[in-house]
Amino acid sequence: MPNATWTRRHILSLADFTADEYDIVLQTAASFQEVLGRRMKKVPALQGLVVANLFFEPSTRTRNSFELAAKRLSADTLNFSPGSSSLTKGETILDTAKTYLAMGTDMMVIRHRQAGVVASIASSLDSSGSSVRILNAGDGQHQHPSQALLDLFTICRLIDPDRPRIELLEGKKIAIVGDILHSRVARSNIWSLTATGAELHLAGPPTLLPELFAEQGKDRPGKLFLHWNVEPALENADFVMTLRLQKERMTDSLLPSLREYHKLFGITRERLKTCKPQVKILHPGPVNRGVEISSDLMDDPDFSLISQQVTSGIASRMALLYLLGSGKNNK
Amino acid sequence: MPNATWTRRHILSLADFTADEYDIVLQTAASFQEVLGRRMKKVPALQGLVVANLFFEPSTRTRNSFELAAKRLSADTLNFSPGSSSLTKGETILDTAKTYLAMGTDMMVIRHRQAGVVASIASSLDSSGSSVRILNAGDGQHQHPSQALLDLFTICRLIDPDRPRIELLEGKKIAIVGDILHSRVARSNIWSLTATGAELHLAGPPTLLPELFAEQGKDRPGKLFLHWNVEPALENADFVMTLRLQKERMTDSLLPSLREYHKLFGITRERLKTCKPQVKILHPGPVNRGVEISSDLMDDPDFSLISQQVTSGIASRMALLYLLGSGKNNK
Amino acid sequence: MPNATWTRRHILSLADFTADEYDIVLQTAASFQEVLGRRMKKVPALQGLVVANLFFEPSTRTRNSFELAAKRLSADTLNFSPGSSSLTKGETILDTAKTYLAMGTDMMVIRHRQAGVVASIASSLDSSGSSVRILNAGDGQHQHPSQALLDLFTICRLIDPDRPRIELLEGKKIAIVGDILHSRVARSNIWSLTATGAELHLAGPPTLLPELFAEQGKDRPGKLFLHWNVEPALENADFVMTLRLQKERMTDSLLPSLREYHKLFGITRERLKTCKPQVKILHPGPVNRGVEISSDLMDDPDFSLISQQVTSGIASRMALLYLLGSGKNNK
Repeated sequence: MPNATWTRRHILSLADFTADEYDIVLQTAASFQEVLGRRMKKVPALQGLVVANLFFEPSTRTRNSFELAAKRLSADTLNFSPGSSSLTKGETILDTAKTYLAMGTDMMVIRHRQAGVVASIASSLDSSGSSVRILNAGDGQHQHPSQALLDLFTICRLIDPDRPRIELLEGKKIAIVGDILHSRVARSNIWSLTATGAELHLAGPPTLLPELFAEQGKDRPGKLFLHWNVEPALENADFVMTLRLQKERMTDSLLPSLREYHKLFGITRERLKTCKPQVKILHPGPVNRGVEISSDLMDDPDFSLISQQVTSGIASRMALLYLLGSGKNNK
Repeated sequence: MPNATWTRRHILSLADFTADEYDIVLQTAASFQEVLGRRMKKVPALQGLVVANLFFEPSTRTRNSFELAAKRLSADTLNFSPGSSSLTKGETILDTAKTYLAMGTDMMVIRHRQAGVVASIASSLDSSGSSVRILNAGDGQHQHPSQALLDLFTICRLIDPDRPRIELLEGKKIAIVGDILHSRVARSNIWSLTATGAELHLAGPPTLLPELFAEQGKDRPGKLFLHWNVEPALENADFVMTLRLQKERMTDSLLPSLREYHKLFGITRERLKTCKPQVKILHPGPVNRGVEISSDLMDDPDFSLISQQVTSGIASRMALLYLLGSGKNNK
Repeated sequence: MPNATWTRRHILSLADFTADEYDIVLQTAASFQEVLGRRMKKVPALQGLVVANLFFEPSTRTRNSFELAAKRLSADTLNFSPGSSSLTKGETILDTAKTYLAMGTDMMVIRHRQAGVVASIASSLDSSGSSVRILNAGDGQHQHPSQALLDLFTICRLIDPDRPRIELLEGKKIAIVGDILHSRVARSNIWSLTATGAELHLAGPPTLLPELFAEQGKDRPGKLFLHWNVEPALENADFVMTLRLQKERMTDSLLPSLREYHKLFGITRERLKTCKPQVKILHPGPVNRGVEISSDLMDDPDFSLISQQVTSGIASRMALLYLLGSGKNNK
C-alpha cells in the first residue's frame, strides 16, 4: 500500500487526481482482483450500506458492472431507471437524488447525458450537509473516471499483477485512436495516462480531434501529441486504445463513411506491425466489429485486452466503492 | 408497545384501522427508525421470505422504497414490471398474482391504476386458502395506506421521536391543500388523521374538492372541514399537507392554469404567516416546484418535512412488512 | 439418488438427455421442494456465484422464476434487459455474453427468439476455454428444457412425492393439445415424455401439427401418436397438457378464430369425460382463459396442475442451477 490515505469523498473527474490516489486505487483493485479469484467472491466490507445506481442515461453494461461490484462488497443496491420514473412527472434530477438520499442511500453512482450534472448534484448535496458519496459513471462528453481507472488497472496489472502502480508506465508509448472529441472515456484517460509519465499520442480525423486537445499537454512538455493520421501514433506503441465510434457522427457530416473510417483509422494486424511486438489493444466497449478494429484482432488474446478490461472493471469499481464507502477521514 | 397484538393479514385501506393498529405501526416504525441510525441497517426479521412488488402502474420511487424496506428486513425481492410481461400476452391480473403466489411469494406489494383491484386480488387469494399477505401500494384514486401511515409517523415522530402515538395529534390543526378529488393520498390521510383527534381542514378549488367529502366528517362532528379557498385552512394550522397536482387536470378543464393554481392555492412563505409559528409542510412527492409550493420553501428545513417523509417511508414500510410477515396470529 | 453423477456443463436441449439425468434432476428437485416447505427457504449452495439472466426476448414470469431459484441458492443475480442495452448500440449477442463472462458470471440463463442461438453461444464460450455454465431458457421454437423438466417433475411428484422418477410414467397416457408446431415447450416435452415409457399423443389442427412430428416416434414404436382432432388423444388419458395459443397465429391464416379453436380443441369438463377419472391438466402459462381451456376448469384444483407447475418451476430450476453450478466433474 502506498504511504497515503484516501480522503476524497466523491469521484467526479480525474482532473485533480494525485499520483498517490492513482496508486491507492490500483493497489486496492489488485487486492479485490485476488478475492475474485476465489470461489467465494464476496467480502462483507459494505454490508448494510446502500448503493443507488442512478442512470439517467440508459446503460446495462456499466450499471451491471457497478451493481455486481456493490453486491460483492455485500452492499444493497437500488436501481433507478428513467423510463418508469418520476422524471416523466416533472421532478428535477436534483430532487430525484435527494429522494434517494432521504431513503438512506450511502453512495450514488450517477450517469447523465449532460456534462457537469453529476458534479453539480454532488455540490448541492454536500452543501445540504449530507455525507453521501458520489461516483460519476459518465456525464455527457466530460468524464468517465471509473472507465479510465479500470483501463489504467488493466495496463498496470499486465506489467506487474502483484503491485500495479503508475510508475510502471514511465516511458511507455500509448496511443488513443478515434473520436476523441465526443469521448468522455478519452478525456478521463488523457488525465490519468499523462499523470503516469507515459507518452500519450492522440490520433483521429481533424473533425474528431480538434487542436484544443493540445492545450492539456502544455504543462507536460513532450508527453502529449496530436496526429490527424494514425501511423505516427502507432509507431513503437506499447498500448493502443481505440474508441467506440458513434454511428450518429456520420449523419452529422463529421465522417464520410464507416468503411472510410476503418480504412483510415481502423486497427488491423497490418497496422500493428509498426508497434512494439508485444503491443496490446484496449477498447471501452461495446465494439463495432470491423469499424474501430478488425473482428479477428478483437478476438485474438495475444493482442486484445478487451475482455480483461471488463474483468478489471469489477475489481476497480469494488475498489472505488470500497474507498469511498469505508473511509473514516472522508466523512 | 401498545397493549394490543397485530391481527391483520392485509393492509388494503385505512377505513377500518383501529387506534391500537395506528399505535402499533407507529411504535414498530420508531424501533426500525432506530435501527436505520446504525451503520449496520439490516435485521434478519424476514430472512428467507419473498416480497413481490407487483407494480401494474409504473413507479420507481415507491417501489424502491418498498424494495429497500424489504431488503433491510433481509427478505428476497421480486419485481414485476408491466412493460415486459405476460399482461401484454392477455393474462389477467389475478392470474399474474396467482403465478407469484405459486412461486412462493410470502408478501405482495401491489399498485394498480384501478380502485378496488388490490382488495379484489386479496379476497380471491384468501378464498383460495392462501396465507399470502397483501399490501396496497396505491389503487386508482382509492387508497394509498402506506403513504398516509408514513405521513402520520413523520408528524408524530416530530412531536415525540421516542414514543410516536396518535394521541399526540389531539387538538392539532392539519390542512390538506390541493387536488383532493383525484388523490388516493388524501383519501387515506383523511381516514388516519381524523382518527387521531386532530382537526382536519381540506382546501381546494370546487372542481377538485366536491362536497361529498364532507360526508366522512358527519360522525366526527367538529373534526372535518371543507374550504374552497386556502386561507381559512391555513389559519393557525400546525401542519400543512399539499398534494401533487397532476398536470393532466388542466386539459380536463378542471383548472385554468398552473400559474393561476399557484396564485390561489400554492403554499408560500407569505401564506404561512397565518399558520402557527412552528408550522411544518408535507408533500407526498414528486413535487412540481413553484406550483403546489414555492421552490425555496420546499428546500427550507425549518418548514419542510418532505425529505423526512421519504426517510420515514423506509421505517414505516419496514414496520408494515414486519407486522404482516412475522405475525403468528394472522396466518 | 440414482447411481449416477451429473457430468453435463450446459442444458441446451433434452434431445440427448439420459434416463439417469432425468432421474438426477427429479430427485434433486424433490430435495429442494422439501427445502421450500420450510420457513427458511434459502440454502448457501451457490453463495458467491453469479447467475446472469440474459433475456434477449422479454419475459417476466420465467426470468423471475430463475431469479428466485438463484436467490434461494444464495447466488447473486444480474439481469440483462434488451430495452436499455448495448444491443441497440450494435453489439453482437455473443459479445454481450462475453462481456458478462468477463465480469465473472458463473452461470448464464439465456432466452433468445432465434432457434440455436443459445447453443451457439455455449459452443463459442467453450472453445474460448471458459468454464461458464449455460442454461437455455427458450430459443425460438426449438427448445425450452427447464419447462419440460418442471412439467415432468410436476407429474412424477404427483405420483410419488418422495421419490419422483421417470419409471413412474411407464404405461401412462399423456396428451399434448394445441399449437405443437410453434411450441418449444411441446418440442422439449416430446423428448422428455417419450423417454419415460409413457404413451404420448399429440393433437392439433393440421396447420399446427405437421406430419413431420411423427418422425420422432419412429425409433420408439407404439409410443408417439398424432391426431388432427382432440378426441382420440383424450380418451383414457392420465395427463392432458394444453399449450398456449399465440393470438398472432390467426392473422397468419393458420386458424379460423379463437372461438372456433376453443370449440374444436379447447379443454372443457365435457371433453374430460372420456379421460381417466383422475386426469390432470397442465398448461405452461400464461393462459388465454376460455381459449385453450375453459376458465372454471383452470381454477378447479381437482383437475388443474397449473399452479403446481409454477411451484415446481422454482424447485426444478434450483435443481438445474445447483447441478450445473456445484459440479466438480463438469468443470
